[in-house]
This record gives sequence, C-alpha cells and structure tokens, in this order.
Amino acid sequence: MTTASWLDLPSDSPFGVHNLPYGVFTTAGDPRRRIGVAIGDQVLELAGAAHAVGHAEELLELLSAPSLNPLMAAGRQEWTALRAEITRWLTDPALRPLVEPHLTPRADVTLHLPFEVGDYVDFYASEHHASNLGRLFRPGSEPLTPNWKHLPIGYHGRSGTVVVSGTPVVRPQGQRKAPADAAPSFGPSRRLDIEAEVGFVVGAPSALGTAVPLEAFADHVFGVCLVNDWSARDIQAWEYVPLGPFLGKSFATSVSPWVVPLDALATARVAPPARDVEPLPYLDDRDAKEPWGLDITMEVRINGTVVSRPPFAAMYWTAAQQFAHMTVNGASVRPGDLFASGTVSGPDRGTEGALIELTWNGERPATLADGSTRAFVEDGDEVVITATAPGPDGTVIGFGEVAGRVLPARG
Amino acid sequence: MTTASWLDLPSDSPFGVHNLPYGVFTTAGDPRRRIGVAIGDQVLELAGAAHAVGHAEELLELLSAPSLNPLMAAGRQEWTALRAEITRWLTDPALRPLVEPHLTPRADVTLHLPFEVGDYVDFYASEHHASNLGRLFRPGSEPLTPNWKHLPIGYHGRSGTVVVSGTPVVRPQGQRKAPADAAPSFGPSRRLDIEAEVGFVVGAPSALGTAVPLEAFADHVFGVCLVNDWSARDIQAWEYVPLGPFLGKSFATSVSPWVVPLDALATARVAPPARDVEPLPYLDDRDAKEPWGLDITMEVRINGTVVSRPPFAAMYWTAAQQFAHMTVNGASVRPGDLFASGTVSGPDRGTEGALIELTWNGERPATLADGSTRAFVEDGDEVVITATAPGPDGTVIGFGEVAGRVLPARG
Repeated sequence: MTTASWLDLPSDSPFGVHNLPYGVFTTAGDPRRRIGVAIGDQVLELAGAAHAVGHAEELLELLSAPSLNPLMAAGRQEWTALRAEITRWLTDPALRPLVEPHLTPRADVTLHLPFEVGDYVDFYASEHHASNLGRLFRPGSEPLTPNWKHLPIGYHGRSGTVVVSGTPVVRPQGQRKAPADAAPSFGPSRRLDIEAEVGFVVGAPSALGTAVPLEAFADHVFGVCLVNDWSARDIQAWEYVPLGPFLGKSFATSVSPWVVPLDALATARVAPPARDVEPLPYLDDRDAKEPWGLDITMEVRINGTVVSRPPFAAMYWTAAQQFAHMTVNGASVRPGDLFASGTVSGPDRGTEGALIELTWNGERPATLADGSTRAFVEDGDEVVITATAPGPDGTVIGFGEVAGRVLPARG
Repeated sequence: MTTASWLDLPSDSPFGVHNLPYGVFTTAGDPRRRIGVAIGDQVLELAGAAHAVGHAEELLELLSAPSLNPLMAAGRQEWTALRAEITRWLTDPALRPLVEPHLTPRADVTLHLPFEVGDYVDFYASEHHASNLGRLFRPGSEPLTPNWKHLPIGYHGRSGTVVVSGTPVVRPQGQRKAPADAAPSFGPSRRLDIEAEVGFVVGAPSALGTAVPLEAFADHVFGVCLVNDWSARDIQAWEYVPLGPFLGKSFATSVSPWVVPLDALATARVAPPARDVEPLPYLDDRDAKEPWGLDITMEVRINGTVVSRPPFAAMYWTAAQQFAHMTVNGASVRPGDLFASGTVSGPDRGTEGALIELTWNGERPATLADGSTRAFVEDGDEVVITATAPGPDGTVIGFGEVAGRVLPARG
C-alpha cells in the first residue's frame, strides 16, 4: 500500500515518501551542518521536526550531529524506528502544522559530505568491466585473473580525498609511461577517466577479529550512494604492478550527497547473475531467499549528453558478498566506512561505466550534443552520474546525482 | 652541547632529554586519556606540567586532548616551540618542584593508540625486500618491476585496523590456493608473517589539488613510530593480482605507542644509497644538503630471540620522497595520516624484515632460543620489534617497541 504524504507529491517523484534519503546541509542564513531527508523538492530538517513533534533527548542528540555518523552507529533497530517516525511525520495530516515549518526548498540549501569517511574500499565486481580492463591493461593475457570468480577483488582507496558532489576535480599530475617510451615522463594526466559506481555506507561497527556473515549485511550497512571513482589511466597503468592502483585514483573520489536507506531498496532487490564458479560457503548466496542484487539503473552525462546507461543488476558480486569478504579475515568496520561496487558496466555498447571501455581506449570516441568528441575527460567538462531504482507500487527511488567539473592541472 | 636533565638519567637512556617521544596514556586511577612524553622510566603528563608552569590556555587545550591529533594539526612552529618548552621543564632545576609531580612511572601507565589514524599508506622502499618478494611471488620474472626505481611504490592499507602495540592479533582466515591446487580452499592462514617497518605520522594538513614538494617534508610530518604490518602470505598471494594486497594485510597493523619527534632525529640523518636511475625532478634529493635517509637500527624478536636486525639506512626511497610522491597528484593529507616505509630489509642474511625472506619461504627456518624453529609465525608467538638511532653527543634515541601476540583463528 502506498502511503500518501500531505505534501501531495507526484507518484513518479524520485524523492517521494518511500525514499527519504539522508543528507547534511547548511543554508545561507545558518552555517550549522544539519541532518535532513530529501522529500519532493524540499529538505526536512530532522532535529527540528523531531523536537516539534516531541521526541526524546536521545533521538534529538543523534539528529543534531553535524554528520550522519552517530545516527549510523546507532544500528538497524534505531534506523528502522526513525524511518517509521519520519514517514509518520510526513503522512499524518495532524502533524503537518508541526512538521511543515522544518521544510526548506532544496534549491536553497548547500549539501555537504554526509558522513565522515572511515575506510574507503573499492571493489571490482562487474565481470564486463573486469574483462574489458583486463583486455586493455594486459593484452595477450586472459582478461579475467584466475581469482576473479572465486572472490570479490577489492583494494583500499584514499578516504581523505572522498569529496561531495559538486567539488571541482583538479586534473592530477604524475608519472606516465607508454609501452614505447624508454622512461617515464611527468605531467598532467592525458587519460583522465571516470568510474560510475554504487557506494555502500557502513553504520553499525563490527569487532576486530570477528567475521561478519552474509546474513548480517543489513545489520551493518546503513545506505547507498553514488560514486565517481575518478581515474588517471596513464598514471594507473604505470604504477599499479605489483601493489595496485595508488596515485591514479587517490586524487579524488566523488560521492552523491544523499544516502538512500537500505530499507528504501526492498522493491529493487533482484537475483544477481548466475555464478558459473561455485562460491566458497562464506560467499554462497545461492540459497538466500533475497540475495542482494539491486535493480539500479544509472546514467552518465558529460556536459549534459548521456553517454552511458550502466545497469547495476548485471554485477556479478553483490554488496553483501563484498561485505562478508571484506570482514572474513577479522578486519573490523566502523561507522562511515564506505565501500564501492567497482565500475558498473553492462554487457552491451552504451552500458560501460568508464570511458576507457566506452571509447575502447579512445579508438571510438563518444560524441557529445555539441558535436565534439571525447576519448577521455577534458578540462572544463562536467560529469554527472544519476540513478534510479524501482520503489513500491510503481514509484521511483531516486539517488540524486554525483557531479564534478574538471579543472586544469596546477603547474 | 648535551643539556642535562635534573632527572639525572644515564647517558645511554633510550628516552633521554634529547628524545621526548609523545604518547597517550591512562592510569589505573584515572581513565582519561592524557598526552605524555617518555623520559627515562617515567611519563611526564604534559597538560599538568604546562598548567603548573603557567602556560596559556591555547597550549593547554592542545595538550588536554585525548589524542595527539590537535597538537599535530598545529604545525611545525608549534611543535618546535613545545619541544623547547618541555626541554626547559626537564632541565631547569628551578622548575623541578612544579614539574616533578606530573611524572608517573612508565610501569604504572597503559599506553593507547597515540593518534586517530586518517589514511594509512604502506610503501615498498627496500630494494632488498622488493627483490626478495619479487623472486618469491613471481619466480621466473625480473624481481623488480620496471617502475620500481622510478617511483616509490605504495598502496593504501586499512586505517581502522591499526592497533597499538600489545593488542593481540587473531590469525586471519581466508582463501588461499597453492599453484598446484585446482581451486582455493578456506581456512586459517598457514603463512602468517610480519613486516618490520618505520612509520611516519602526518601532522599539518595539505590542500586538495596541491602537491607538497620534497622540501616541505618536515613542515608536515610530525614524527616517527615503529610498525609491524602483519601479512598472511597465502591469502595475499592468491588475491593480490591485479589490484594489490587486501585481506592478506587488512586484519591488523600494529604501531608503537611512542611517536618520536622528527626533531629528535637530526643526528640520525644520513645519505640514502646511491640511486642508479635518475629520479624525476619532484623526487630528486641528490642535491639536498640533508636528505632524509635515517640511521635507524631495528631488532626483531620472536619469543625473546633476536631473529633479525634490519637497517633502515639501507632504504632506497626516503620518507621525504614518499611524501612528495603521495601528494604529487594533488591528494591531500590530514593530521593522523600514517605512512609506513615498507618492510626494512638489508642486503645481508639476518637483516630481513619479514620471515618469508628470512626463512626463504620456509626453506631455511629460523631457530629460537628454546630450540624450536619457525618458518612463519605460530599461534602464541610474541613478536617484538625495537629500534634505536644515534642522538647528539653519543646519546641514543629509542623508539620503544611494537609488540603483538598471535591468537588462534576464530572458527
């Protein structure tokens, strides 16, 4: 049953009452960072609304923090109760006079990084992406490494350079060496790329030395955002053997300002692709009633032109498997840990989540609406990634966007 | 000139007045985390001493924090001034009555992780270690990858599992597959190893999009600690291609509780080994009057037996080069960022910083004092890494120790 809000939103609103993504905002008149949820074209300030409706000090304290971390640390039970409360505030007409004063038009707020990032891990879960990159980075070898279908490959990225959507991205400088060059040269990256990904934000912590099983995924993961894992392909190609990507990735990772609660994605859950290698028991979700495939459709725009529509449902490894893998050695998680899916690339042309695949290393450039073409991202380009998922009763769950404009390298 | 402390310490004390390493401690009677410096067999509580001597509110606030982060964020000028002050407190006999009440025997304190870790980066700067690992992990290939002498190779590790010396380390479980096996199996690591490293702790932040040059190293780096980068070689070998080490390293990284100020290491600076490949300008320290090689001698003990004495002066890349490299793409640093040197291994037998090298993959096991042998670390083993460097006038700068005992895997 669809609960209707007294806000009378259109049924296809990406920020309807079934979504309620969390963010952190300020306004021109008030520089304090406050927690809000997006609803229609507005933001509901949660601490203000909770106070007006008359909530206990404990909840007010969580909602009065300048980031989502304390709320995320509180755990699944608290998250579910709060979501029910916010739904009640926005649907019970009797509460409207108390709640409505705490709405602000989204156009009037500045959105900030919604959580303090603990560790940032980036996975590599699309078979299509991993195969494409294998062909491009290791021509002549098998495109997938022998471990790829046995474990969700991942690595740690730089958490200190995770930035909120809208933050400009300075073109990185570094060492790059084409195979034909005798020695590396130094300068601005000539092959600046994007990676369209889905990010998962950890709320409840786990204990050092203790693995978290597949089934406990939703007890720990608070919500979902969009990620653009900016990548300098020339720097990456020269540096990444043997210890993995480092400066080719660490200059910036952009995230969307809204964290969609896991609860808002119940309708979007789908079975992941069939696994053609039997997973070890700690990764085996084949008997799970509801595995964590998610039917999220993404769009990648460069300067307004849609260049790709990556399908998240095509990902080989789910976030629940990634989480179980990430902790199976006893590594602990903290509130604010972020792990991203890896580039979302589907099997078809026009579904690649990175330009290196979409343009096949520049061999087939993408054409933008103004007639210009792109092999990689140029200075001044704005990249915007958006996404939606199906909500209950034909509604839409929107993820908003992660946007970034490229600035020239600093000499 | 050696300044003498009214504490009348022996001249070979590892914690003399020329060292003054910073840590965070509690006592049985007072669970508040307090900042102290080690002096002889005691700890001087800094906020208490500063208050007694009559210091301004600003300094007291930095010294009253439960971690070193605010002090480290204050920057080089503040660090130098504070060090001069602490030296004065401990050397001016007139101040003794004010300062002495703030000393506690080190035996009576519990030491904690001295700083909140931002990003953790691990480098790979010993030519001997990288060559050994290349031979062991990639037999039949060139031991050093083509990039190794052009850039200090590094990768991001897990900051949330950096633990203070003394924290037990649970043997990790995970996937491992010997080349002869048809498929990976799951279980406790059978090849649990250590890596003896030196860690550098960042104080003053840098701005996103801006490189930090070689010369600015000491403006940003606060001090030095010891690191044991525990490594599960079987897990690492199976997972690390193509994105680098992940679960083989992320279960625990131990650090010593005392951060030795960079200023205490002036006498220990030495020229690094000659570079046989010309470094790109941003890494070129060949004309520097005082490059950042450091004459630190380490000792690795297993259950009390010294198994190795790794020489830090043999490292090919210095910490200043690593820092310049880490930020050359515009990646920012934050107070509490930790970067480690990579395993310290010298050219000779008995100077290897990891068991996989020392025992050559188990082929020549190490013999302990009790007659038992070790290919890798066993459950119950205690690994202790210590280090010293030359101080002024024949004094010794001690780093204390990083210790950890291995607990059996949890089933």
